[in-house]
Amino acid sequence: MTDFFKSIPTITYEGPDSDNEFAFRHYNPDEVLMGKRMEDHLRFAVAYWHSFAWPGGDPFGGQTLDRPWFGDTMDLARMKADVAFEMFDILGAPYFCFHDADARPEGATFKESQRNLEEITDYFAAKMEGSKTKLLWGTANMFSHKRWMSGASTNPDPEVFAYAAATVKGCMDATQRLGGENYVLWGGREGYETLLNTNLRVEADNMGRFLQMVVEYKHKIGFKGAILIEPKPQEPSKHQYDYDVATVYGFLCRYGLEKEVKVNIEQGHAILAGHSFEHEIATAASLGIFGSIDMNRNDYQSGWDTDQFPNNHAEKALAFYEILRAGGYTTGGTNFDAKIRRQSLDAEDLILAHVGGMDTCARALKSAAALLADGSLETLRRDRYAGWESEGARAMLQSDLTSITADVLARNVNPQPKSGRQERLENLWNKFV
Amino acid sequence: MTDFFKSIPTITYEGPDSDNEFAFRHYNPDEVLMGKRMEDHLRFAVAYWHSFAWPGGDPFGGQTLDRPWFGDTMDLARMKADVAFEMFDILGAPYFCFHDADARPEGATFKESQRNLEEITDYFAAKMEGSKTKLLWGTANMFSHKRWMSGASTNPDPEVFAYAAATVKGCMDATQRLGGENYVLWGGREGYETLLNTNLRVEADNMGRFLQMVVEYKHKIGFKGAILIEPKPQEPSKHQYDYDVATVYGFLCRYGLEKEVKVNIEQGHAILAGHSFEHEIATAASLGIFGSIDMNRNDYQSGWDTDQFPNNHAEKALAFYEILRAGGYTTGGTNFDAKIRRQSLDAEDLILAHVGGMDTCARALKSAAALLADGSLETLRRDRYAGWESEGARAMLQSDLTSITADVLARNVNPQPKSGRQERLENLWNKFV
Amino acid sequence: MTDFFKSIPTITYEGPDSDNEFAFRHYNPDEVLMGKRMEDHLRFAVAYWHSFAWPGGDPFGGQTLDRPWFGDTMDLARMKADVAFEMFDILGAPYFCFHDADARPEGATFKESQRNLEEITDYFAAKMEGSKTKLLWGTANMFSHKRWMSGASTNPDPEVFAYAAATVKGCMDATQRLGGENYVLWGGREGYETLLNTNLRVEADNMGRFLQMVVEYKHKIGFKGAILIEPKPQEPSKHQYDYDVATVYGFLCRYGLEKEVKVNIEQGHAILAGHSFEHEIATAASLGIFGSIDMNRNDYQSGWDTDQFPNNHAEKALAFYEILRAGGYTTGGTNFDAKIRRQSLDAEDLILAHVGGMDTCARALKSAAALLADGSLETLRRDRYAGWESEGARAMLQSDLTSITADVLARNVNPQPKSGRQERLENLWNKFV
Amino acid sequence: MTDFFKSIPTITYEGPDSDNEFAFRHYNPDEVLMGKRMEDHLRFAVAYWHSFAWPGGDPFGGQTLDRPWFGDTMDLARMKADVAFEMFDILGAPYFCFHDADARPEGATFKESQRNLEEITDYFAAKMEGSKTKLLWGTANMFSHKRWMSGASTNPDPEVFAYAAATVKGCMDATQRLGGENYVLWGGREGYETLLNTNLRVEADNMGRFLQMVVEYKHKIGFKGAILIEPKPQEPSKHQYDYDVATVYGFLCRYGLEKEVKVNIEQGHAILAGHSFEHEIATAASLGIFGSIDMNRNDYQSGWDTDQFPNNHAEKALAFYEILRAGGYTTGGTNFDAKIRRQSLDAEDLILAHVGGMDTCARALKSAAALLADGSLETLRRDRYAGWESEGARAMLQSDLTSITADVLARNVNPQPKSGRQERLENLWNKFV
Ligand SMILES: [Co+2]
Ligand SMILES: [Co+2]
Ligand SMILES: [Co+2]
Ligand SMILES: [Co+2]
Ligand SMILES: [Co+2]
Ligand SMILES: [Co+2]
Ligand SMILES: [Co+2]
Ligand SMILES: [Co+2]
Repeated sequence: MTDFFKSIPTITYEGPDSDNEFAFRHYNPDEVLMGKRMEDHLRFAVAYWHSFAWPGGDPFGGQTLDRPWFGDTMDLARMKADVAFEMFDILGAPYFCFHDADARPEGATFKESQRNLEEITDYFAAKMEGSKTKLLWGTANMFSHKRWMSGASTNPDPEVFAYAAATVKGCMDATQRLGGENYVLWGGREGYETLLNTNLRVEADNMGRFLQMVVEYKHKIGFKGAILIEPKPQEPSKHQYDYDVATVYGFLCRYGLEKEVKVNIEQGHAILAGHSFEHEIATAASLGIFGSIDMNRNDYQSGWDTDQFPNNHAEKALAFYEILRAGGYTTGGTNFDAKIRRQSLDAEDLILAHVGGMDTCARALKSAAALLADGSLETLRRDRYAGWESEGARAMLQSDLTSITADVLARNVNPQPKSGRQERLENLWNKFV
Repeated sequence: MTDFFKSIPTITYEGPDSDNEFAFRHYNPDEVLMGKRMEDHLRFAVAYWHSFAWPGGDPFGGQTLDRPWFGDTMDLARMKADVAFEMFDILGAPYFCFHDADARPEGATFKESQRNLEEITDYFAAKMEGSKTKLLWGTANMFSHKRWMSGASTNPDPEVFAYAAATVKGCMDATQRLGGENYVLWGGREGYETLLNTNLRVEADNMGRFLQMVVEYKHKIGFKGAILIEPKPQEPSKHQYDYDVATVYGFLCRYGLEKEVKVNIEQGHAILAGHSFEHEIATAASLGIFGSIDMNRNDYQSGWDTDQFPNNHAEKALAFYEILRAGGYTTGGTNFDAKIRRQSLDAEDLILAHVGGMDTCARALKSAAALLADGSLETLRRDRYAGWESEGARAMLQSDLTSITADVLARNVNPQPKSGRQERLENLWNKFV
Repeated sequence: MTDFFKSIPTITYEGPDSDNEFAFRHYNPDEVLMGKRMEDHLRFAVAYWHSFAWPGGDPFGGQTLDRPWFGDTMDLARMKADVAFEMFDILGAPYFCFHDADARPEGATFKESQRNLEEITDYFAAKMEGSKTKLLWGTANMFSHKRWMSGASTNPDPEVFAYAAATVKGCMDATQRLGGENYVLWGGREGYETLLNTNLRVEADNMGRFLQMVVEYKHKIGFKGAILIEPKPQEPSKHQYDYDVATVYGFLCRYGLEKEVKVNIEQGHAILAGHSFEHEIATAASLGIFGSIDMNRNDYQSGWDTDQFPNNHAEKALAFYEILRAGGYTTGGTNFDAKIRRQSLDAEDLILAHVGGMDTCARALKSAAALLADGSLETLRRDRYAGWESEGARAMLQSDLTSITADVLARNVNPQPKSGRQERLENLWNKFV
Repeated sequence: MTDFFKSIPTITYEGPDSDNEFAFRHYNPDEVLMGKRMEDHLRFAVAYWHSFAWPGGDPFGGQTLDRPWFGDTMDLARMKADVAFEMFDILGAPYFCFHDADARPEGATFKESQRNLEEITDYFAAKMEGSKTKLLWGTANMFSHKRWMSGASTNPDPEVFAYAAATVKGCMDATQRLGGENYVLWGGREGYETLLNTNLRVEADNMGRFLQMVVEYKHKIGFKGAILIEPKPQEPSKHQYDYDVATVYGFLCRYGLEKEVKVNIEQGHAILAGHSFEHEIATAASLGIFGSIDMNRNDYQSGWDTDQFPNNHAEKALAFYEILRAGGYTTGGTNFDAKIRRQSLDAEDLILAHVGGMDTCARALKSAAALLADGSLETLRRDRYAGWESEGARAMLQSDLTSITADVLARNVNPQPKSGRQERLENLWNKFV
């Protein structure tokens, strides 16, 4: 037991009127919505990296956070794990997520890094036995070390591809060992800085082959979870290949993987790509590749990834509505890939940032569930497209331009516009949010 | 012979030192670069809509341009065509492009609109006999009339889909009749305003089926040109389905059309989607779907489509370099989907805007061709990826994560980063631009 | 009595649980918050232009809205006024706003335009006698007609400046005649398209002198209202001189007007300028120039002015909190410079868009008022800066670099960072929103 | 003599056709343009921080650059200076710029940091005796250390203000000692992360008072250079007070400093604020506060400061044209606040990045000077505004709304729009670029 959170109580649900900062006002794990417990709907996860491995730097400033576990030894790595699991307990977090590099010190060789990872995986496993917190997903950090500076699977140097393959194998093994429910790939450096030195075709083919190997290995080891790609348009790379959900879908088709791989969608990345978060979720759902989400917002006035905790339930309700419409999560969950501001120095800030994020999501979920249960919006949507259920419309789709033209001429077709009723639907929305 | 351009001479090449505003300084159609005439490289096209049908309005203001042919009669439509072909002659433009709605008055019924189109198509055909200007592509305007306000092929109302099908058939017929080398679809309203009233799945399936019908009809009538989709992320729609090249590729795969349909890439649309123009071209080339371009720039400080004539040859050289690397155009060309500013009231402005755009492109092309002919940049690119041509690297790609990991451990792989040399490549670039 | 809204009842407050679409759920005019009626806090205004003069066009499409009063005669202008005042009654709107061009047909000469304006002003005055709706502000449309295409007071042609001066005089007279509480200037074309043809110095000086004349005229006629500038960064102009609140402040200082002129801040314009709405309000308040707001949102994914009705109360609460902190409106109010989507064809859409907007604002206001009344946030803010109230800190501000340096050395000053507590404050915020 | 650049020759001018990568193709220091040597026009400066103190990190990755002088001792600081002056010689750079933190190790106390700075200042002074390179400007880094995390002069803690005052005094003294021609303040943390914890009024007043103290100290010590503020809209702060040139102007007016302080304009910051670079320069010139520039571009597709070397001479010509129109630099210069990409690992990359940047600027300058010397563009500009030189126009500006209206009515003023000729001017531009 560390004393990092020593004065902080376990967080429990006290309801909307509570004056207790260290309580949930909206997240009530056992409350049932649409036949499912709130905890099972939301499947919250804490991100190991932002909460325990980030020193508070930004592009113009260095470390602000003092944490007793910062450093490069296995002992410190274990202290970090101790603190992390204490926080999971305080929050009642059902899941966490981690990269190899968050959890273990980098070794002098791949072998040593791998051994460190295995040790810390064992340590995690032991801690998880005494904890209710499970692993939502594991992943490999293939962007921080300088070896990755020009890409991992897309690196011009085949040695880096090899190192990446070995790294991902190690992380998949660790994920499997810990009962992880998904494995995520975020290709922060799978992109380019300048077209002048880039061969798009070679990089795409190598990245496609790499992903096939990941899928093959998943089947080989019997990993039951989902393989997820996390799209992002840019940053750190000037251009990232997994730009957004639609781009990833095209990539999956190109390499025959659209049935094997899904997406982990981050709100901030959706914004950077010029989309709304709900757009990306709805798009993935309609393409059959929706997996999981990273529920951390960007600042609308900042052109980079701010990874902030969500704090506007009315906005997030749109995201949860699309998730519920899609049937909810299967293996996915709500990961806070979110960091406190670098001025938020205190242990309390770290806890309360999560409490606020969880409450924001819970409130958003309740609104979304109420609206979906009500059914009015879905009825109006169905009505709008009802014409397409007619026999004539179905026949037309089996037809051809020549026949349709003949019909247009014969019937003197002259379609009359009908109101899209956007504002009325927004009002209906606001009745529930 | 109208007198609209009466005081304006035919534009000819006079070289970089010419003081004559009404001359080309860089575009010399017969000059040979890399074994091909410049005219055949560039394949310039004038856009009928912006040059002859646009009254100068913007979202906050009405008509500024007075043109004697503005109005809704067939006589005025013919006068418009007369002026247009006069301009094509003055510029020596090898191609033009048009929508149905630019060329003919809207009729009271589909039948009447179609008859008007046929008449004006005949009129075009007659004019083309006495002209060197050919049709680069035809297209249908399915976004201006209020019937399209909620989409064409993606409309919730099947009657609109029918009307769209008949419209496209008419435009494909006109394009075929005029010897058009491509047929373009831009889905300005194929998107949504709000997810609240939208069924993404139905809309995508209908749009996919529509495009299949277009391809089927192309084969039926023996149209030899390419079918092209023009991506755009938004505007007028809040979200447009053909967001960018990568999104279109995914869509084509989804509906089995990736071998049948290519893209027409517009610089301004690339920018709106968060890409560089050269990125979109290089991406399309690497996916095998590069078709043609709309060479009109956006203002980098404006968040909407400004459709300006290109005026920075150094920037456009990047685009032409990617086109040349891809082997140049086959059926495609360089269309100016560009409009003069609404304050550019004079006939001279319209001519000189095109002259400037053509010169900018010619200059860019020459730089790009010189650099490609020089070969240094491509040599450096090949060298950077040379490792992937080794037997070991090829074998690794046929391998699996387990074997690669064994190899990494056995050889203690420890990749050393190599300089990406971006600034040196930019300097090399600037030697030629 | 027209029959445009014939089936639509007067909107009254029915509370949050009402199932009646045609009722307020949150806006209860007589409810008292912080000692003031909600109606007097919010001071809602309807914008004549978007609601009654806009045909539904966008840059890619024409008219979608059919309104019986569309046309260019005085009779139609009166019918438009009849409908407008019927809508004001239905909504219980305490205010409206208008431009000359919304209300009267353009004449063949300035004289005729002016006479039309005077007639319609009289007609408004008569209608206002039988109505509770007052005029929040009047303004001149100096951007739609082609004469303004290169600016009004900043036009290179002095004749346009003269025409603008006469136009503003006419609109100020009309505003005074109708008891308007403010007069607004939005300089949509007071900017430039290209620096190549622009003289920034002449344009700024002329615009400054113009504004001085407006202030002089205000005093001459004894107009008691405020003169307000509405900032916007761009659109229609590539660059607009009244870019944002801070820019306007500098402009006012440059021409000695910072005590005479305030700002009307629009949410959408704040976003386009790279700010949050609350930033612009707080900035104006801190500079002593906060006047009024245009409460219409932009779409965060669209790079142009979408002028949508607000629909996220949680976000708008931030704006109302800053307004309340600044002491609330004096002459200002909450104007909906908002338009329904062009697909929202029905009379019901127009009414319900306003109902939703008013409810969103009312809800936001209530949250903001509760938080301000609670006082916790302001206490925390004061505490954070408490050091500046010490005598030592005050003395330091009267001091100089040399003395302060001596003190730093003497005391070995070594400041320790304190948590900014952003997430905790956001949680506090969400307790009230 | 270090051996860092050992294989790299001194760079000299060899002309556009040179095949030597290590030569200038356009920058010819002694070439005379408009009566002034090119070196004296351009006044290039190297930025100490990016070239010698930056390890190659970004928000997602750590150090990539290995430099023998990295570390925290005075010996290493001297080695860094040795290498820096070797690079200045290789490039023939007439100027450099530095922050305290780039040049000296941070001490355990202010006193120690100050002593380190003084020592390194002496070391610089000694090196400058044997060098032609002078100091363009000095500045203080008040954003990297955690003490500055919530601002320097705008910090809620008066102790930080004191520390900032002592820091700036030390840096001004060093600048004075080294004959610096300007002193720059960039307020990277003078802004806020959230309005919820911010007192805008207190922060602005403290920042204003701080700047007054800086100006007072300048006069006290007889510093002859200019005090410059470098605007930036955001990053690292969510909002920065010195947003752009117009905002800084308003701030200077508010605190009575508009005659005392000028601006240092960075291209990348202009872009982030929604402006073009040339806009910011022209605006500053028209306000009388143009000082100097940081000539480093942003990537148009990236929403953060990429600080890249300029590589498009056609674009930069617009900036130099505005500088020349404004009369050229007085104390200012062309500073490369630019960093090589973090993949550009080699010593050659660092040198050649500067060579490319200098050549790009030289080429841009030559174009701009030729166009200005030609005079056509300025003649056209003057002609456009010629109406304002008439007696009638001047009289109107001394008049009032009532008199002007009478005149409009009497003369039946009806202004006719004239073409703005944007495209023709762009063609004229391109004749020279
Ligand atoms: Co992120
Ligand atoms: Co993420
Ligand atoms: Co376009
Ligand atoms: Co286009
Ligand atoms: Co607006
Ligand atoms: Co407005
Ligand atoms: Co910068
Ligand atoms: Co800078």
